[in-house]
Amino acid sequence: MKTDVVILAAGKGTRMRSSLPKVMHPIAGKSMLGHVVAAAEGIGADNIHVVVGHGAETVKAAFDGHSFVEQLEQKGTGHAVAQALPKLDDDSCALILYGDVPLIAPETLQQLVAQCSKTSMGLLTTNLNDPTGYGRIIREHDKVVAIVEQKDASPEQLAIQEVNTGIMAVHSSHLKQWLPKLSSDNAQGEYYLTDIIEMAVADNITIEVSQPKTPWEVQGVNNRMQLNELERYYQRCRADEVMADGATLADASRIDIRGSLKVGQDCYIDVNCVFEGECEIGDGVEIGPNCVLTNSKVANGSTIKANSVLEDAVVGEQCDIGPFARLRPGTVLAAKAKIGNFVETKKAVLGEGSKVNHLSYIGDSEIGEQVNVGAGTITCNYDGVNKSKTVIGDGAFIGSNTSLVAPVTVGKNATVGAGSTITGNVGDEELAVARGKQRNISGWKRPSKKN
Amino acid sequence: MKTDVVILAAGKGTRMRSSLPKVMHPIAGKSMLGHVVAAAEGIGADNIHVVVGHGAETVKAAFDGHSFVEQLEQKGTGHAVAQALPKLDDDSCALILYGDVPLIAPETLQQLVAQCSKTSMGLLTTNLNDPTGYGRIIREHDKVVAIVEQKDASPEQLAIQEVNTGIMAVHSSHLKQWLPKLSSDNAQGEYYLTDIIEMAVADNITIEVSQPKTPWEVQGVNNRMQLNELERYYQRCRADEVMADGATLADASRIDIRGSLKVGQDCYIDVNCVFEGECEIGDGVEIGPNCVLTNSKVANGSTIKANSVLEDAVVGEQCDIGPFARLRPGTVLAAKAKIGNFVETKKAVLGEGSKVNHLSYIGDSEIGEQVNVGAGTITCNYDGVNKSKTVIGDGAFIGSNTSLVAPVTVGKNATVGAGSTITGNVGDEELAVARGKQRNISGWKRPSKKN
Amino acid sequence: MKTDVVILAAGKGTRMRSSLPKVMHPIAGKSMLGHVVAAAEGIGADNIHVVVGHGAETVKAAFDGHSFVEQLEQKGTGHAVAQALPKLDDDSCALILYGDVPLIAPETLQQLVAQCSKTSMGLLTTNLNDPTGYGRIIREHDKVVAIVEQKDASPEQLAIQEVNTGIMAVHSSHLKQWLPKLSSDNAQGEYYLTDIIEMAVADNITIEVSQPKTPWEVQGVNNRMQLNELERYYQRCRADEVMADGATLADASRIDIRGSLKVGQDCYIDVNCVFEGECEIGDGVEIGPNCVLTNSKVANGSTIKANSVLEDAVVGEQCDIGPFARLRPGTVLAAKAKIGNFVETKKAVLGEGSKVNHLSYIGDSEIGEQVNVGAGTITCNYDGVNKSKTVIGDGAFIGSNTSLVAPVTVGKNATVGAGSTITGNVGDEELAVARGKQRNISGWKRPSKKN
Repeated sequence: MKTDVVILAAGKGTRMRSSLPKVMHPIAGKSMLGHVVAAAEGIGADNIHVVVGHGAETVKAAFDGHSFVEQLEQKGTGHAVAQALPKLDDDSCALILYGDVPLIAPETLQQLVAQCSKTSMGLLTTNLNDPTGYGRIIREHDKVVAIVEQKDASPEQLAIQEVNTGIMAVHSSHLKQWLPKLSSDNAQGEYYLTDIIEMAVADNITIEVSQPKTPWEVQGVNNRMQLNELERYYQRCRADEVMADGATLADASRIDIRGSLKVGQDCYIDVNCVFEGECEIGDGVEIGPNCVLTNSKVANGSTIKANSVLEDAVVGEQCDIGPFARLRPGTVLAAKAKIGNFVETKKAVLGEGSKVNHLSYIGDSEIGEQVNVGAGTITCNYDGVNKSKTVIGDGAFIGSNTSLVAPVTVGKNATVGAGSTITGNVGDEELAVARGKQRNISGWKRPSKKN
Repeated sequence: MKTDVVILAAGKGTRMRSSLPKVMHPIAGKSMLGHVVAAAEGIGADNIHVVVGHGAETVKAAFDGHSFVEQLEQKGTGHAVAQALPKLDDDSCALILYGDVPLIAPETLQQLVAQCSKTSMGLLTTNLNDPTGYGRIIREHDKVVAIVEQKDASPEQLAIQEVNTGIMAVHSSHLKQWLPKLSSDNAQGEYYLTDIIEMAVADNITIEVSQPKTPWEVQGVNNRMQLNELERYYQRCRADEVMADGATLADASRIDIRGSLKVGQDCYIDVNCVFEGECEIGDGVEIGPNCVLTNSKVANGSTIKANSVLEDAVVGEQCDIGPFARLRPGTVLAAKAKIGNFVETKKAVLGEGSKVNHLSYIGDSEIGEQVNVGAGTITCNYDGVNKSKTVIGDGAFIGSNTSLVAPVTVGKNATVGAGSTITGNVGDEELAVARGKQRNISGWKRPSKKN
Repeated sequence: MKTDVVILAAGKGTRMRSSLPKVMHPIAGKSMLGHVVAAAEGIGADNIHVVVGHGAETVKAAFDGHSFVEQLEQKGTGHAVAQALPKLDDDSCALILYGDVPLIAPETLQQLVAQCSKTSMGLLTTNLNDPTGYGRIIREHDKVVAIVEQKDASPEQLAIQEVNTGIMAVHSSHLKQWLPKLSSDNAQGEYYLTDIIEMAVADNITIEVSQPKTPWEVQGVNNRMQLNELERYYQRCRADEVMADGATLADASRIDIRGSLKVGQDCYIDVNCVFEGECEIGDGVEIGPNCVLTNSKVANGSTIKANSVLEDAVVGEQCDIGPFARLRPGTVLAAKAKIGNFVETKKAVLGEGSKVNHLSYIGDSEIGEQVNVGAGTITCNYDGVNKSKTVIGDGAFIGSNTSLVAPVTVGKNATVGAGSTITGNVGDEELAVARGKQRNISGWKRPSKKN
């Protein structure tokens, strides 16, 4: 049987106090709706229909390529799903999800879909210590016979801790039969999806029940406090994963992984690091406190010291980076390279064993092996309109406080004297110096304080 | 009826192990006493009398302008309040607060004062899961009839969870009548304010009771562990406030707000940021991890990247700051300005779209629009005694590793060659270069290792 | 009676997913085994025998000088202890500890040893809310009569919350008598140390029981999640210690102390700081957020601002460091010195009141008193093979963007002009300048965009 996923994503989320549609707010850098879509994709759903309303254009732009259904007025969950009916295959399992319930797990969905295949209806419930406000699951002889809302519940029913999550898998033919019969004759004047439960019972459909592994899976988000709770839960799970994979964390509650982080064996990640996009760190890599890595790879045995920021960078084996290093996109370091404090690199390729240890800017550069770039060296790669390239050969020694005015080439084993501004190429083995002659003047009178 | 607030602030706080009087220890950058005074001011108290003793001079200096009462010996709470009696209006409500119970809320005080107006006595109590050590509230037919101390309590009384907080509002005329009757005939030889409860009961005064919204309001501080607990509770409240105001926090337990933080809609504040003084960030502002902002404003749509430090800075709209930027006092950036990594600015005004991207120090400077300041540029604003100014006109291009020896002016659309030390003004559209000629020397022999 | 400590440290720790033997994984920078050895040393143990197996060479190298026993096959705790029997004094108290139960306290061990002296057997138990999986302590008339494993326990026994920790002190003569009698006739085919309990009972030995102050003391580590739990517990204890010693922490759950941190009175440590090795900070020292201090001393009244990194540095009184300062090994600052942002020092001695405020690298340098080193100054201390020294006399003024090519001496009260490359010594009071002459060129045509 095919699976037609319907994700309700039309709500405004007034309590978010945001110009962004609620479902577009991120958990770990990915929109809540993105998490739900990923879960649906994770079970190989045949079609994913997103019901959009508030901020529809924003949602559609972000999920280009998916199937959208417009819900022009927000008249309840039943109404929202009804908009999607024309898109549903007659013989599919319709899985109803919510764009603001982001952490639902594929395994849980799999189970619901299987139950739908079996009896045409699977309902997801969860048990809460404090079920106040939720619809209670009424069972007779263990079978679900009704959902009673808080306001309609008897004292005995109020004590029931099993509640409705709203997530369900229903055979589409039933949905098509039941949804048109929903009534909005209630206090809110809305059409409630939940009401199909009693129709199912009336039609003698057995309602199978699943529960998520953790209540976090069915936790919805209505404000930024709840968003933050889910963010932290999610981050804690990611932390547990990297620890299970063989990395030691200095503090499992002080790491943020927004995307994927692949760790080798015996990595060590100190407090307060942030990983964004696709990151990968090899065996024995050590990351110091307060580092931020984005879409970067760090190979075996390298160390990234405190307060370093890497973006779209590739760091070879046994490199030594930071503290206070900033590797920008296009930085590619061969093994045993060293980037020290207050050094910025951008589109910079360094050969094996080369070092830029202090206070330098290396941009649009190709640097060979075993090169030593002195403190305060600047590649002047920009003339105001064009970017130009600096090339430095193997074994070259660039003296401190040097300006390399690109395009420029410094040859193999060449030497540049400290404080030079190099505007012309330097040949292999040559020494280049470009600086004023030192004059010592005696009798110099220091400036005095002006008023 | 007038309100006379009496704040007990004479204690030494031995367990703080500090040379500072206990009430001067800060929560979120403001002294505990400062919080209590602010709460009293929050209800429009007519007079605030601070009872000082240990470190009186320090306290008086910090709260200059308030009314102080000296308690020369510390002989108990009743004794402390008694010192203030001469200052109390005969017909006022005397509200007794504690300088080491910092998080009391104005709403709670308002309620007590109202109760005092009604029956001449309002008492603040709270319910504790573990009331051990506290004075239990004894009620008969719901009315407070006594407070029994731990050591005097019967087993039934020990089970009472409602305890005395010490905070109360009493008609001053009663206080003046009761306090002189207190006895120090007890184990500690102290005069206890609590003992007026039985006098009130004896005098048939109805004691109205209020409770704080949260027990944190009545939590006292005796050591730095307790100080830290309150700090973290307070910070968590601040975090909830900015989230309610429409900012997303990466981690609500990893933000510190010491002062006020006004946030626009859809701000994002990453982990571990600290805000001090009066800060304001506009709509859509993003603050990266580990930033510290002090008395700074960041306008709509700007981004402050990781590890940046701003103090008394004003950042215009759509600016791009950091990572590793340090904006010092007097930095004012127009829209779309960019301050990059390892750049320090001080008394620096930048025009729209101007950029200082790397490794520079810009001090005492006026920089026009669309200026590009190259990497490693230093404004030499200090000659050892005087500070001088650097002025750069619109559209100028300052080459990398340039020293601008102030006072100096670089004209509009002027260009300064990389590596130059500019000591004289540069005219509009001119190119200025000041560097040695490059010489390439072949046959250069590298230094060899010395012993 | 002598104390022979036997520490079981032969396990592989498969679930750590590590190439390091389990007991070598660190808590607060010290291996778990190191913590256990320190606890044993803390009670003045006469001999410490470490039973090694997996990764024996690594363990032996790290604990060089201790007594080792090889357990070639891992056949259970009883088997492990049996390997150490030949090393035990006949009349000693054998104290059995575990290399993966790192936080056992000396006070707890002292108690066990005292009990062993008294009755020849002391057993450490603890009470768990959920004892599932642990051996239950069976008592008759309060006396321990057996330990029943989970799988063998009756429903009544399963309800017992007192469990065996495995830690015990036993007279060596008994151990020598009992261990050879252990059987491996059980599901795992292992020899269990626990089985000696019933032998003790059979021999009418009274088993004295102790309990640790906190269950954390007997918490074992089998994976990195558990390692992290102990790390955070341990760090929280360290935080409480420094608060008790008179330091205020901005967040007691956001400080990491890996080694020792001695604090003066009224220190303030902001969020997210890390201390490694032996650190000491004096009275009134303030450490800003995100600082990392390693083996460093900071004297009274100094301030270390945000995002600074110190290693093997000595900071005098009333110094002002950071933000973004990096003091490397050999940095020694006299009183009132100032190291500002983006400044790196290494083997640098600064005299009283001297300042290096911005963007500089000061290495292998001796700097006198009241020296001002301008922004962007670089000591060129390395010629590719040799390191050389820079000496600057009292009161000298080094202009910005200066390169000091070592070996070089700048005399007292000398001045170096901005942008100079100084290759020769500068005499006292002299002015040295070394830069190109400025030329202003009009009619200069800016570069145009290339394709």
